[in-house]
Amino acid sequence: MPEVDEARIRESFGRQRLMATLGVTIAYIGPGEVHLTMPYDERFCQQNGFLHAGAVASLADSANGYAAYTLAPPDTDVLAVEFKINLLQPARAERFLARARVIRPGRTLSVCQADVVTGDAEARQVATMMSTIIIRPLQRT
Amino acid sequence: MPEVDEARIRESFGRQRLMATLGVTIAYIGPGEVHLTMPYDERFCQQNGFLHAGAVASLADSANGYAAYTLAPPDTDVLAVEFKINLLQPARAERFLARARVIRPGRTLSVCQADVVTGDAEARQVATMMSTIIIRPLQRT
Amino acid sequence: MPEVDEARIRESFGRQRLMATLGVTIAYIGPGEVHLTMPYDERFCQQNGFLHAGAVASLADSANGYAAYTLAPPDTDVLAVEFKINLLQPARAERFLARARVIRPGRTLSVCQADVVTGDAEARQVATMMSTIIIRPLQRT
Amino acid sequence: MPEVDEARIRESFGRQRLMATLGVTIAYIGPGEVHLTMPYDERFCQQNGFLHAGAVASLADSANGYAAYTLAPPDTDVLAVEFKINLLQPARAERFLARARVIRPGRTLSVCQADVVTGDAEARQVATMMSTIIIRPLQRT
Repeated sequence: MPEVDEARIRESFGRQRLMATLGVTIAYIGPGEVHLTMPYDERFCQQNGFLHAGAVASLADSANGYAAYTLAPPDTDVLAVEFKINLLQPARAERFLARARVIRPGRTLSVCQADVVTGDAEARQVATMMSTIIIRPLQRT
Repeated sequence: MPEVDEARIRESFGRQRLMATLGVTIAYIGPGEVHLTMPYDERFCQQNGFLHAGAVASLADSANGYAAYTLAPPDTDVLAVEFKINLLQPARAERFLARARVIRPGRTLSVCQADVVTGDAEARQVATMMSTIIIRPLQRT
Repeated sequence: MPEVDEARIRESFGRQRLMATLGVTIAYIGPGEVHLTMPYDERFCQQNGFLHAGAVASLADSANGYAAYTLAPPDTDVLAVEFKINLLQPARAERFLARARVIRPGRTLSVCQADVVTGDAEARQVATMMSTIIIRPLQRT
Repeated sequence: MPEVDEARIRESFGRQRLMATLGVTIAYIGPGEVHLTMPYDERFCQQNGFLHAGAVASLADSANGYAAYTLAPPDTDVLAVEFKINLLQPARAERFLARARVIRPGRTLSVCQADVVTGDAEARQVATMMSTIIIRPLQRT
C-alpha cells in the first residue's frame, strides 16, 4: 500500500466550503479509506426533524471522494460522476459518521462505498452510498 | 388529474430547515410535478468552487419528494427510500432549477425523476436524479 | 448531428451473443438514440411468469450502450461502468421495446437513459434505466 | 436469527426459468444470505466475449431477492423495486459467484447487496449490486 499524502487530502477538504458549513471534520485517513464525522444540526433537517437525505448524501459523497483521492496520483483531482444512496432508517442521532473505502481503484475511475452510521456506541447504519469517482489531471479554477 | 393541495406542500416544505438554509424556494407546483430553485452560494461548494454534489442532491431530492407528495393521499407523508444521481457537468451558475416529476405513481412507492439545470436562459443540465419515494401514514414526531 | 455509422452498430450488436439468445433485434438507430425490441419468452422469466428483471436490464443495458456508441469516435468501443434500473411494474406483454437516448455525451463518459415499454399500442412503461458508459480505444480480444 | 425455510427458497428459485436458462444453481442459503453460482457461457456474452452486464445483473438480482426472501414472513413474495450495479472489471472466468446479504431487513422493504466474484481461488470481484426489495402478500398468477 502506498503512503497516503494526508496533507493533500486535508488541503482539498479545507477548500470544500460545504464541509465547513455542515460542521464536518475528518476522523480518519488511511490508504483507500476516509472517515468523516458530522454533528446533528436542525438547520440541515427535513420536515420531521431527521437529518435531510441531502445532508447525509453530502457527508457520504465527500467521504467517498476523499477515499478515492488517497489512492490518486499527484497532480490529479477527483470528481463524483454519479452516486446512489439507500436511506436505511431515519437519520436522528447527535452525531453521524461516514466510513468510506475504495472498492475498486482505477486509473480513470474508482468505485467507493460509504456507510453512514450514528456516531454513538450503537453505530446504527442509516445509509449506504456507492459512488463512481473520476480521476482527472489537476485544473484549479 | 386531481387538484393539488398546494397548502400542504408549502407547509411541509416550510418545515424542511435544509431548504431554508440553502435558500431554496418553490418555483412551481402541479399535479405530479414540482420545481425548486436555489441560488449559487460559496458556502455550499466543493474544492473547486462548484456547487457540491450533496447540495445539488439536496435540491433534487426535495423536488422529487414533493412531486410525489402532490399525488399522495391526505394524512400521508413521503420519505425517500433511495436515489441515484448522475452529475453531468460542473455545477457553476448563478442559480439552479430542479424540475421533478412523478414517473410512476403508486400507493406505497412512487418513482420520480428530477433534472437539475442552470437557472439562466441556457438551462444547461447539470444533473439528473431518479428516486424511489415511500408514502406512509402521517406520523409527526 | 453527425451521420451515424449504422454498420458499426450492427456489426457490434451482431457479436453480442446475449442479444441473439434473448431474441433481441434493432428497431431504430439514430444519432444518440437506439431502440431494441424483444419478444416475451418463458425461458427468461422470474417465479411469477413476468420477464425477469435481469432480462429487462439486459435489453435496456444494450440499448443504452449502443445509443452511446452512435456518438463515439471511430476506433473506440463502449462499456457500461454502472447502471441503475427502476422496475415500475411487472413485465408481462408479448413484446418489449427499450428506447435509449444519450442524455449527456462525453469524450470519456456518456450518460444514457432507456425507457422499457410494452411493445403494444398501450406502450406501458415497465422500467427506466440510467447508465454511465465509458468510451475506450478499441481493443478486440 | 430465525430458521430459514430452505424449501420455500428452492421452490421459488425452481420456478425462475431464467435461472435454469443461465445454468445458475444455489451454492448457499443462510439467514439473510444467499449465494448463487453460474458457469461462463458464450451465449450470454457481450461483443468482446465477456459475460454481458445483463447476465451479471440477472445473477446478482436473483441472489439479492432470495437473500431478502430468507427473512420474509410466510405467505409473502419478494420483488425487486430497483437495483444499481457497478461493473468493476470485465467478467471473464469459468464460473461466477454472487454472494448476497440483507443489509437492512424491513417489513415492507429490504435492502440487499450482492458481490459478484469469479468462481476460482482468486475470487476477483467483477461487480457489486445494491437492491431495494419489496415484500408483498403472496399472489400466484
